[in-house]
Amino acid sequence: MTFKKFLVTKTWGAIILLSWCNFSQAQSPEGITHSGQKTNQMPFPVSSYNELQNPTPTPVKLWNDSQKTIAGWGKTNKRYKKEKPVLKDSLSTDLNLQGWRGEKLSAQWVVSAGKKDLSLSVETSDLKNINNNQIISNEQIESAFVRYVLTDELNKDQKGACGHRVPANFDSTLVADVIDHKIKDFKVLKRTTRPGWLSIQVPQNTTPGSYSGTVKIKDGNKLLKKLVINIEVEERQLPDPKKWNFHLDLWQNPYAAARYYQTNLWSDEHFKAMEEDIHHYVNAGGKSITASIIDRPWDGQTHDAFHSMVRWTKKLDGTWDFSFDVFDKWVEFMMDLGVSKQINAYSMIPWKLSFAYFDEATNTTKHLKTKPGEEDYKNSWTAMLKAFAAHLKEKGWFDKTYIAMDERPMESMEEAMKVIKNADKDFKISFAGNSHPELFDVIDDYSITLSENYPDKIIQSRKKQGKTSTFYTSCSHPYPNSFTFSEPSETEWYGWYAANKKLDGYLRWAYNSWVMEPLLDSRYTTWAAGDTYFIYPGGRTSIRFEKLLAGIQAYEKIQFLKSEFKKNNNTNGLLKIDEILSSFTMDELSKTSASVIIEKAQKAFQSL
Amino acid sequence: MTFKKFLVTKTWGAIILLSWCNFSQAQSPEGITHSGQKTNQMPFPVSSYNELQNPTPTPVKLWNDSQKTIAGWGKTNKRYKKEKPVLKDSLSTDLNLQGWRGEKLSAQWVVSAGKKDLSLSVETSDLKNINNNQIISNEQIESAFVRYVLTDELNKDQKGACGHRVPANFDSTLVADVIDHKIKDFKVLKRTTRPGWLSIQVPQNTTPGSYSGTVKIKDGNKLLKKLVINIEVEERQLPDPKKWNFHLDLWQNPYAAARYYQTNLWSDEHFKAMEEDIHHYVNAGGKSITASIIDRPWDGQTHDAFHSMVRWTKKLDGTWDFSFDVFDKWVEFMMDLGVSKQINAYSMIPWKLSFAYFDEATNTTKHLKTKPGEEDYKNSWTAMLKAFAAHLKEKGWFDKTYIAMDERPMESMEEAMKVIKNADKDFKISFAGNSHPELFDVIDDYSITLSENYPDKIIQSRKKQGKTSTFYTSCSHPYPNSFTFSEPSETEWYGWYAANKKLDGYLRWAYNSWVMEPLLDSRYTTWAAGDTYFIYPGGRTSIRFEKLLAGIQAYEKIQFLKSEFKKNNNTNGLLKIDEILSSFTMDELSKTSASVIIEKAQKAFQSL
Repeated sequence: MTFKKFLVTKTWGAIILLSWCNFSQAQSPEGITHSGQKTNQMPFPVSSYNELQNPTPTPVKLWNDSQKTIAGWGKTNKRYKKEKPVLKDSLSTDLNLQGWRGEKLSAQWVVSAGKKDLSLSVETSDLKNINNNQIISNEQIESAFVRYVLTDELNKDQKGACGHRVPANFDSTLVADVIDHKIKDFKVLKRTTRPGWLSIQVPQNTTPGSYSGTVKIKDGNKLLKKLVINIEVEERQLPDPKKWNFHLDLWQNPYAAARYYQTNLWSDEHFKAMEEDIHHYVNAGGKSITASIIDRPWDGQTHDAFHSMVRWTKKLDGTWDFSFDVFDKWVEFMMDLGVSKQINAYSMIPWKLSFAYFDEATNTTKHLKTKPGEEDYKNSWTAMLKAFAAHLKEKGWFDKTYIAMDERPMESMEEAMKVIKNADKDFKISFAGNSHPELFDVIDDYSITLSENYPDKIIQSRKKQGKTSTFYTSCSHPYPNSFTFSEPSETEWYGWYAANKKLDGYLRWAYNSWVMEPLLDSRYTTWAAGDTYFIYPGGRTSIRFEKLLAGIQAYEKIQFLKSEFKKNNNTNGLLKIDEILSSFTMDELSKTSASVIIEKAQKAFQSL
Repeated sequence: MTFKKFLVTKTWGAIILLSWCNFSQAQSPEGITHSGQKTNQMPFPVSSYNELQNPTPTPVKLWNDSQKTIAGWGKTNKRYKKEKPVLKDSLSTDLNLQGWRGEKLSAQWVVSAGKKDLSLSVETSDLKNINNNQIISNEQIESAFVRYVLTDELNKDQKGACGHRVPANFDSTLVADVIDHKIKDFKVLKRTTRPGWLSIQVPQNTTPGSYSGTVKIKDGNKLLKKLVINIEVEERQLPDPKKWNFHLDLWQNPYAAARYYQTNLWSDEHFKAMEEDIHHYVNAGGKSITASIIDRPWDGQTHDAFHSMVRWTKKLDGTWDFSFDVFDKWVEFMMDLGVSKQINAYSMIPWKLSFAYFDEATNTTKHLKTKPGEEDYKNSWTAMLKAFAAHLKEKGWFDKTYIAMDERPMESMEEAMKVIKNADKDFKISFAGNSHPELFDVIDDYSITLSENYPDKIIQSRKKQGKTSTFYTSCSHPYPNSFTFSEPSETEWYGWYAANKKLDGYLRWAYNSWVMEPLLDSRYTTWAAGDTYFIYPGGRTSIRFEKLLAGIQAYEKIQFLKSEFKKNNNTNGLLKIDEILSSFTMDELSKTSASVIIEKAQKAFQSL
């Protein structure tokens, strides 16, 4: 693939590397991004942007063989190639979906423009129930175009996606991932394919039954294709996402948002801009607020480093003083949006053991270099944690706040935990890392890597103690994963997997740690493309994220069914569920694709 | 003088330039100075150090002509050359001094070591009054060695000493200036001259009369010379320096002290180390405490920039918050030592119009770029000044605190003053700069350059209003001045000049803004050597400073005499004083040296 590599290097790789030097450290919103486009950056609203040039050449022969414009329903688990015509036979005119009341359903249509450019728009109708004349209003249907973003690939050994990256060393392609609801019509160039995405929110109060409507794909004023959508709404009801049990913990990065939107940190504009983005987390039942209680808890691993939401001040007399103003404002913002179960406070063991504080004597920011086990560490953190506990209690947040750590050497963690419990024995602790049996009884919110399993008894005993047990994926997992090139169903698989393993939920370290131009180029200087963010600026969701949501809904539905079956003493049903879920293992996934496993399971569930 | 220049460049010039790059920005006490000596730096006490090599060659012939070791009383207004033998006839064995009770007197002895090295020490006796057997205890006599420090010279046009300097462009020589009381015996190499300094503090309660004692100059155990000192103590009494009227305002730089002594800013060690240095200011009746209320009021003009003693914090909600902890600690320290008349707070119009503050949102130090006349300037300074006024009133310091400025464009100053008076109409203002008639009624503490004069009526009216009117010297004055190469009497002349001009006192912008190695090399990257400091580390005074003190004592004595003469209706005496003082003008000084003018005046006073 030398040609592709070359092209990418020449057009974007080199520019990105150069630009990275200028921008990677920048906290200020100055300067423009490498595309020269204001891709939804402030001031709002900037609704449209141009995708990057396709580094993959157009296979001209394929288009010559099929010169007509093609349109129809595709599948949501597929990323359609921009440069390739879609196979006519793979599309349908009618789409049949099933869903519970309260469920959010997805559909993907595809258009391949033949000999001429199209001015594409979509017109959805209400969905009608012919039996009782009731409708699902088309206001419940969000129509969007799927947009192409630059991605790369797994490491060459296919074993993962970790490590520093230079774009020239990886094949780079455009991939369909962004779900862009900000444009109402879209110019589709001839000989390119363009998918679109529909999200149908079935209202809680819908009368069960069959609903039908049309989706008109138009080229200007001309009807290109009239598609039919049928939804069978079941009696069962999925509650509001805030009431879901699935413990979803995607780490939010408000610092990336401030940089991207070119707003002052924690200004009204900053919060306003973040609302749409956090909205998707809320709608997926996001449970945890990510709070940074020190500067750079993960040093500079993301394009925009996290800073401290707590002001650490060393007073002239040597005592510590803490201000929680920023922390409060951020937490209150998140709670107001609906994320209110948990606050995760990072981190007592940062990647670089250097703690920034404002030194009143010198009137400058200084760094305390100390590590768990040392007197300085104990004294400064004890002061902080005591002040933090008092503040949290005043706010009524103490019980939902977790002192959070990622995997560090066991000795460091034990020293840190001593300090935590000494400051307040009731402080909860959150930990993401390997499975350490000695920590199972100690950690209140434990997330282990997908590669490991909790012992069955542990899961049960932790549940009884009210402790949360989840799993996480990272760059070390080639699949399932949420890279921009990952098969969409891989993130849907998570919910099913959690259900099978009786886990409480899923954690990922990056919800929106955007790269420089997240809408255009999902590649980063480290890890495979898309690793650092799930959603796109301007409140745009992604195929990966919508599939994650689908999996979470499956998880919730499974819990609902199980409890229904238990109530009804439907032992057979319960056994069937377990049987269906048993295919959601890493072992099975290594044999077939996530979409096949999920489709099979979905069918089996329908027969329950 | 090519040879000297070459030598200096090779030995120190180049090293200093290199080192400067490394050290000029350093606030931390890390690293060693270019001499590799711990020249009285922490930890205390380090009492001895080696002077730099003399760049001036020894005039061997002169020493051959006079091979004997010579010792005797010299004059305090003379800087004896290290490399030259002193002329035997210029010295005396007996020294006759006159002084008031409470006065501090000075004497200088000189030794030129002939054919062999000396191990020099000094033994002083009590001073006895043979008439009544009373004594001035030798505890009142401080004995010190005069030390040599590297200096340079005026600008080549002899018109001043301003501007950036490269050592190689100026003749550099060793000059006698440091008065080092920290050593009790001193190795004097053959063919070098070494002066010593005695300070005699005549106790307030001394019975008037003649006191005599001896000063034994010894080489090891061997008596080299027995000198006689006679002091005629007069009836009149000079009060304690704290009660003096002379308004002495030398700007203290605690940041230089912290760097030099390698102590943490505002730590106990820092304050302890500064005590001895500030002591000389107190003993000269120092009136004003120099406080920096913003970061870098004079940008980086001194080796150690001033930082803010006030913490400016921009809160998350956009309001300002101020902490005065450092300010309080510094002011209280100075007041405890005896400097309690006035606090000068710098500066609302810094040299670089950029105001550092801690920004709570970003958890970083930011800079507000604004200037007088702008909204941001007005709003931030109004917030600061109101908080400052409230704090000062609580402390009981409001009436003695002056918002202080140096010369800036008149428009800026007027805008700043509007903001000050708007924040609190009673805020006092201090200003050092040119004579602006429109400011005479506004500025409470005005210091104009020596090159200008206040109109006579203005001096009188300002005095009636309780306003202070002083003069200052700077690099723009070739003489009189306090460079390390200046004639010592030039600083003594200041007091007499102030008395003649009916000024309240004297201001200089630098008391201890030390260069990198102030004891060794008084040269700096800007201005002539010694411009940036009057006293030396480790509580060491200087010939320049002791002469300044002598002039201030003269000023006080003149005020005393005048008020005595007024009380006694001694019109003739008053006229005589005015006549004597009338020779203290720049005009006269341009015709003859300060020492000649002073000696003449002193004699005339004795006949009063």
